[in-house]
Amino acid sequence: MRIEEVDFHYLSMPVVRNIGDGSQDALLVQVTMDDGTVGFGECEAAPLVSIAAWCCPMSHSACKPLKSTVLGYEINSAEDIRRLTFEVRRNSFDLLQTDHTLSGIDMALWDALGKKTGRPAWSLLGYRQCFAKTAYASQLVGETPQETFEEAKKAREGGFKATKFGWGPFGQGTVEDDVAHLEAAREGLGDDRVLMIDAGTIWHEDIAAARKRIDALKKCNALWLEEPFHCGALAEYAELSGDGVPLAAGEGSHNPSLAKQMMDFGKVKYIQIDAGRIGGLTSAYEVAEYARRKGVVYVNHTFTTYLALSASLQPFAGMESSYWCEYPVESTELAQTLTTKPIRPDGDGRIQISSEPGLGMEVDFGTVRRFERKVQIDIDNNIIWKSK
Amino acid sequence: MRIEEVDFHYLSMPVVRNIGDGSQDALLVQVTMDDGTVGFGECEAAPLVSIAAWCCPMSHSACKPLKSTVLGYEINSAEDIRRLTFEVRRNSFDLLQTDHTLSGIDMALWDALGKKTGRPAWSLLGYRQCFAKTAYASQLVGETPQETFEEAKKAREGGFKATKFGWGPFGQGTVEDDVAHLEAAREGLGDDRVLMIDAGTIWHEDIAAARKRIDALKKCNALWLEEPFHCGALAEYAELSGDGVPLAAGEGSHNPSLAKQMMDFGKVKYIQIDAGRIGGLTSAYEVAEYARRKGVVYVNHTFTTYLALSASLQPFAGMESSYWCEYPVESTELAQTLTTKPIRPDGDGRIQISSEPGLGMEVDFGTVRRFERKVQIDIDNNIIWKSK
Repeated sequence: MRIEEVDFHYLSMPVVRNIGDGSQDALLVQVTMDDGTVGFGECEAAPLVSIAAWCCPMSHSACKPLKSTVLGYEINSAEDIRRLTFEVRRNSFDLLQTDHTLSGIDMALWDALGKKTGRPAWSLLGYRQCFAKTAYASQLVGETPQETFEEAKKAREGGFKATKFGWGPFGQGTVEDDVAHLEAAREGLGDDRVLMIDAGTIWHEDIAAARKRIDALKKCNALWLEEPFHCGALAEYAELSGDGVPLAAGEGSHNPSLAKQMMDFGKVKYIQIDAGRIGGLTSAYEVAEYARRKGVVYVNHTFTTYLALSASLQPFAGMESSYWCEYPVESTELAQTLTTKPIRPDGDGRIQISSEPGLGMEVDFGTVRRFERKVQIDIDNNIIWKSK
Repeated sequence: MRIEEVDFHYLSMPVVRNIGDGSQDALLVQVTMDDGTVGFGECEAAPLVSIAAWCCPMSHSACKPLKSTVLGYEINSAEDIRRLTFEVRRNSFDLLQTDHTLSGIDMALWDALGKKTGRPAWSLLGYRQCFAKTAYASQLVGETPQETFEEAKKAREGGFKATKFGWGPFGQGTVEDDVAHLEAAREGLGDDRVLMIDAGTIWHEDIAAARKRIDALKKCNALWLEEPFHCGALAEYAELSGDGVPLAAGEGSHNPSLAKQMMDFGKVKYIQIDAGRIGGLTSAYEVAEYARRKGVVYVNHTFTTYLALSASLQPFAGMESSYWCEYPVESTELAQTLTTKPIRPDGDGRIQISSEPGLGMEVDFGTVRRFERKVQIDIDNNIIWKSK
């Protein structure tokens, strides 16, 4: 079957606030094949910019819009999708936004191929079976330690075996402020639950600042410290990794090489991949396989919809030793209603991975209509993009 | 002075061909300060996508359009520009296109600050003096070895002390084809001129394929082999670096970290930075300083206008040991006429760096009017971008 059409639906909450909640908008990608098969994916990316990367005029032979490679491409096997990913990157490698746009398209193609063949994406990727993952609730740090405590208690009562706190005021005030949040989180969770901490790159390249929190992180028994530094600060990651708190990072990786370098040179113990940024399932699976060989635990990075969550699980579905699953608990109405059914932890706080064809999710077009923003781009008065 | 307005002029040749000539379009950035000072810069990037990164709606607190950080920013010193670069990256780090858009803005700010203070950008960056660079002609490999020979001869007759051949058919056919081009290039140049070879990432991660050309590269006395692999293949770079032909790379770096990793882990001897991609002069200078400390030679990557060329020279203007300068000889009419005067090699094949304020160049608005493409972007029928 050939790729006949690619639609981008730019969805957004009516008001987008200046907070670290990535579920306030979404770029839904709908791929239609010439035999009528339809697949869906999602870019975890700036929607307008990602659409522009799809439809912009060519600048030169290595700076082409994605549509010039994707439209008309024949997709009948996993190998075809892998080859397309390779060709898109070769034809568009001077177009920086490429990987983010590619992510949603690649996802949608695995979804379409799954629907065509009746197989789940994880099976097409190469796994024989899939394993349930233990969900960790992903929460923003509260404005006050009391708020953090309440959120932790709520997560515990919600049945989560693990909770990750991050962003919000964490790392922006004094060490004492952060220690108070860490203690509150642990107290709210209780000693029998797992706690992870996400610094959201707040210390940039400042190892000393990160080090001041290490004792408290140990005291509250944090499983990992996530993103103490920006994603290029590999030497700083490597140095801090010696301090006894395992590091986690990788969500900023927009291609497999960057994720591999985070493991090889940054010495992280948990590699966190957003399938909506790294180039889709093809690239995420490549990283998962590499992580397995290196003894690094693969973790999905997901803060948005259930479609994105399902997609994010496929690349490591068959990897028993990578058992954590990031689970967003504070996402927007848009994110929670984009699919006709949610993905919820079971009674043991675990996420069961669907064996339905493709990504196993159905898009609710009522939600799409409700939240869609209509984009039109003209160059010299010619329409080069118009939302349907 | 405050940043009052940022205009993006999307310029393009009437026909853009599917070849490796990056001068077929340009994104000129014009920054106007509240005291009337104007600066110019250029993004070496997909114009439409870069404009979208400027004006798109916010997705969340780390995925903001560049305009939200840049407009109204107070710029009175080099330190202010450096701080702005930092803040743009912090506020927009989930927006992949950010670095490419930032590049032209940053350049324009150094130009504006130079005009305000009467100092050249290299002086504002921190150099006390500047050194002329030896130009190498940057040429596409011919369709046939005979064409390559003719181009080499022409470059020699044009007075260039060095010529780099790359792209075109190189690496795409047999080893024998490539050897024939290498021999033709050397024969056309003569033994007293320097030859560099640019593989344009053609072997991706295939070390064996690259190795098959090493003997011929040694035989024709190539100063460096540029970009045998894609820019994330650091382990492959490091391995090939042991084969006796110095490697050059870095043009794909869209932030200083990536360039540093290319030196530290990829073991290149020449780090090639495109100031129009890495985030402008601020980021390029950071790389140049790092290269100096590591004993790596800094080289500009420039394939477009004289404005971009002037900008690309500033970050290493004061570094005597980094003496090569990439000089595009086959650029389009658009690229050659964007400024009122060209930059030409002197009788010794060297490029003298201007001591005029800022970037020392004047934009020809006749060229701008002739080649400008008008962009309009609407969301929900509201205009969010319209070219003037």
